[in-house]
Amino acid sequence: MQKRLLNTSANLLLRSLKTAAINPIRIARPVARYSTVKSVPLTADTYSSKVQRDPKYKKLDSSDLDFFKSILPESSIVTDDDDLLFYNEDWMRKYRGQSNLLLKPKTTQQIADILKYCNAKKLAVVPQGGNTGLVGGSNPIFDEIIISLSSLNKIRSFDPVSGILKVDAGVILENADQYLSEQGYIFPLDLGAKGSCEIGGNVACNAGGLRLLRYGSLHGSVLGLEVVLPDGTIYDSMHSLRKDNTGYDLKQLFIGSEGTLGVITGVSILCPARPQATNVAFLAVKDYETVQKVFVESRKELGEILSAFEFMDLKSQQLTKQHLGLDHPIESGEYPFYILIETSGSNKDHDDEKLENFLGNAMENGLVEDGIVAQDESQVQSLWSWRESIPEASAMNGGVYKYDVSIPLKDLYGLVEAANKNLAEANLVDFEDDAKPVVSAIGYGHIGDGNLHLNVCVRKYTSAVESVLEPFVYEWVSSKKGSISAEHGLGFQKKNYIGYSKNPTEIALLKQIKQHYDPTGIMNPYKYI
Amino acid sequence: MQKRLLNTSANLLLRSLKTAAINPIRIARPVARYSTVKSVPLTADTYSSKVQRDPKYKKLDSSDLDFFKSILPESSIVTDDDDLLFYNEDWMRKYRGQSNLLLKPKTTQQIADILKYCNAKKLAVVPQGGNTGLVGGSNPIFDEIIISLSSLNKIRSFDPVSGILKVDAGVILENADQYLSEQGYIFPLDLGAKGSCEIGGNVACNAGGLRLLRYGSLHGSVLGLEVVLPDGTIYDSMHSLRKDNTGYDLKQLFIGSEGTLGVITGVSILCPARPQATNVAFLAVKDYETVQKVFVESRKELGEILSAFEFMDLKSQQLTKQHLGLDHPIESGEYPFYILIETSGSNKDHDDEKLENFLGNAMENGLVEDGIVAQDESQVQSLWSWRESIPEASAMNGGVYKYDVSIPLKDLYGLVEAANKNLAEANLVDFEDDAKPVVSAIGYGHIGDGNLHLNVCVRKYTSAVESVLEPFVYEWVSSKKGSISAEHGLGFQKKNYIGYSKNPTEIALLKQIKQHYDPTGIMNPYKYI
Repeated sequence: MQKRLLNTSANLLLRSLKTAAINPIRIARPVARYSTVKSVPLTADTYSSKVQRDPKYKKLDSSDLDFFKSILPESSIVTDDDDLLFYNEDWMRKYRGQSNLLLKPKTTQQIADILKYCNAKKLAVVPQGGNTGLVGGSNPIFDEIIISLSSLNKIRSFDPVSGILKVDAGVILENADQYLSEQGYIFPLDLGAKGSCEIGGNVACNAGGLRLLRYGSLHGSVLGLEVVLPDGTIYDSMHSLRKDNTGYDLKQLFIGSEGTLGVITGVSILCPARPQATNVAFLAVKDYETVQKVFVESRKELGEILSAFEFMDLKSQQLTKQHLGLDHPIESGEYPFYILIETSGSNKDHDDEKLENFLGNAMENGLVEDGIVAQDESQVQSLWSWRESIPEASAMNGGVYKYDVSIPLKDLYGLVEAANKNLAEANLVDFEDDAKPVVSAIGYGHIGDGNLHLNVCVRKYTSAVESVLEPFVYEWVSSKKGSISAEHGLGFQKKNYIGYSKNPTEIALLKQIKQHYDPTGIMNPYKYI
Repeated sequence: MQKRLLNTSANLLLRSLKTAAINPIRIARPVARYSTVKSVPLTADTYSSKVQRDPKYKKLDSSDLDFFKSILPESSIVTDDDDLLFYNEDWMRKYRGQSNLLLKPKTTQQIADILKYCNAKKLAVVPQGGNTGLVGGSNPIFDEIIISLSSLNKIRSFDPVSGILKVDAGVILENADQYLSEQGYIFPLDLGAKGSCEIGGNVACNAGGLRLLRYGSLHGSVLGLEVVLPDGTIYDSMHSLRKDNTGYDLKQLFIGSEGTLGVITGVSILCPARPQATNVAFLAVKDYETVQKVFVESRKELGEILSAFEFMDLKSQQLTKQHLGLDHPIESGEYPFYILIETSGSNKDHDDEKLENFLGNAMENGLVEDGIVAQDESQVQSLWSWRESIPEASAMNGGVYKYDVSIPLKDLYGLVEAANKNLAEANLVDFEDDAKPVVSAIGYGHIGDGNLHLNVCVRKYTSAVESVLEPFVYEWVSSKKGSISAEHGLGFQKKNYIGYSKNPTEIALLKQIKQHYDPTGIMNPYKYI
């Protein structure tokens, strides 16, 4: 079969299908700042026309500190400005808050005591996991107290028969996945920031990531939560049942609530068996229409073993090449679009045959210009790095405006084209010319989920660029009945734009929920809705 | 390979693996009453010590009828007692309400008008789908007005690229699945009552069923809902995006709310591609421990193609044999437990090989006493009928007390044994002797989901039997940290037992939700929580 492939096309440099090791584990990237911006301006200054500190919130004073000292060990209380900087700033270095206090509780009860006090005193708080969010949702805007979950980081239990894992909220995603790997299981969520992000934060933001196509959303896999409500009530709903129809599924409200209803302290989640075989193919195609065709065919032919279908445009790969300083895996030239396909299954021979047939057909039908299949675990990791390094590469010239949207498949890439057109008309963009603020708008993402990442790579953040992008991007997405936030959430960045994705009745009902659970409004203010 | 199997065991009557047709569709059972009880006593009489009509609700009068006549065509209003009987009674003929009015609206707006009026007048209502519920949740207790969704039954749209289906709530599950079959897709939910149950009711009850092992719960696959709230507000959240992180996922509250928060009128749901190949194997094993071992092995070896793992005990099959009047598929004798395994995949040859290897290993390891593999579509249907006919067979001697529980796997069958022991000690049970009220407690269900159906098959409903079963069953489940309702819901039957599965904080928060959305309390009263 492989012979046939090689014989029928000179273009397709399809290499051996002796691929993929068992249980491949990607190399964790070191925690890296997305941006090379030297000093991050205060969010309060940048957005002074849009947001002011609400005077209803108490300002921290020594009596408050005394209280926190009475319930927490000294090591859990951080007040030094330099130490606070990491927590005040976001990962992209776009937002900077002015918190004077970081608390790092070690138990659920400590968090309950903290919230009960803050609620009574009207002290605003912002819960923070691994600080890897992309919409400024986990950083303070003004002087909110930061509650870090990082010290609440124990794996509570794992049942190897059912695959149900229970963890503290502060467990780092990659640590959980590594632990599961040793038991023959896999965490149903994976994303680029896995080395830093925490499971509580993942759940609070309803993270989507790279495995959603195969394992579905957290709304399906999370079986139970432990949450501290704003008044200090501990909502212990850490169930470990795949099916339980006794009452409203209340935990769902906290999945994706971005710290505005309470603090998630524990997660019970159903984990699938770890695939025995993984294959990764990296393909070059001639246009976006072909990307869609390859997707439809892959879903048909690869069926139940298709575990990722990611696409990347040319400029995203050019930037990543500069960033990584490596030769691109597709050596025969540059192509308008690239596709990464991953399969995961229980039988290596079957999976190889399915992939071989699929690639052979795709080539015969003229869909694929060139392609490569990983031959071992290091190649699997290497090919994934060309997809996972795009976010960092996007910001290496200074910064990046990130938009994470859902759009019906046929229109999906149109947004990138429209953004570049508008930026060009405003004379703001040039890939080479350092005098222009914008390098390029690039597009990549999870085709299988209808999820585009539009990154507008800039040399500096300017209001001229922002005014071209917003509200244009949101209006464009809304016109296609898409979502202005597929997986990144609303946070601070999109607080005022929910109306592009939700109707007034929906928004009114959401505001009721916020009011119901957090009437004092101490939880992560100035954000979400 | 197959030869090896036949050579190494004389016991395993493993037949040809030339199995399963493409897109098998099970024959829909005719709508059948579960019970042969001639006249169903009024719920209000049977449970007079537990529930009384709440005088806060208005009694229907002619002015109300005049209003409904002003907004609905005559054909949508039913007041004749004989015509009302089907809607007043439940499927199992255990509950009977006394409603004097059935409304069958044809549009969402009509439902909004009805609820707005009822809310203002304090007229209690009960929404009803296909009336196939098993906990008396969709029948009135007293004189609640029945709102049937059966006339709201259009398929709204289907996108063959994304697989997203939008339907009215009253579309019958099997009709939707048949429609999807023609498009190469499958509904992610399947259950015995598919020929009668309606999708709105499925979602309102968070139905689990036979495909949950493969396709997950409705909390993961439902993408949007349209719901009329008690005050008549239309909550239009019929989104069709796989990923959308703009605000709390409010629709989740209505999934499994059993008509107590509003009336679901529309459903948007993600449907998977229809498998190209289906295999079904029916196996006999010697004890419950072996059932578990076969499950663990099947998950390992069949991996991503395992789509159902159902178990049945001997008595469930003896009753089904009497009911169907057919020879059992396992002809070599009777065995303590039976297992039905279904695989669904995209490549027939690969699936056959995986199943063959798995069965060969299971036999070599002495796990399987006898077995059969379906060779064509009619055999697939025939084997499934031995699992799907158990509910009807359970009631053929008079009636059945049904318990649907989640229990950790190792303890799961212990409940059936304990129930039979208690009934025997109370001298209430005999499989042959018609003088005893109980035929037997039998067990079957979805091992893959930790979900047991305990059916206590009776010749008549008696309080003596009930007092042996309750609260014993709930206490036993609670002691194993299980759920007293895995998929059937709470309805009327389990309203007072939620405390066995949820703690006081959880229950208090659930009651708040009910109060928040239905402060007047008109939605499906006397039930749920």
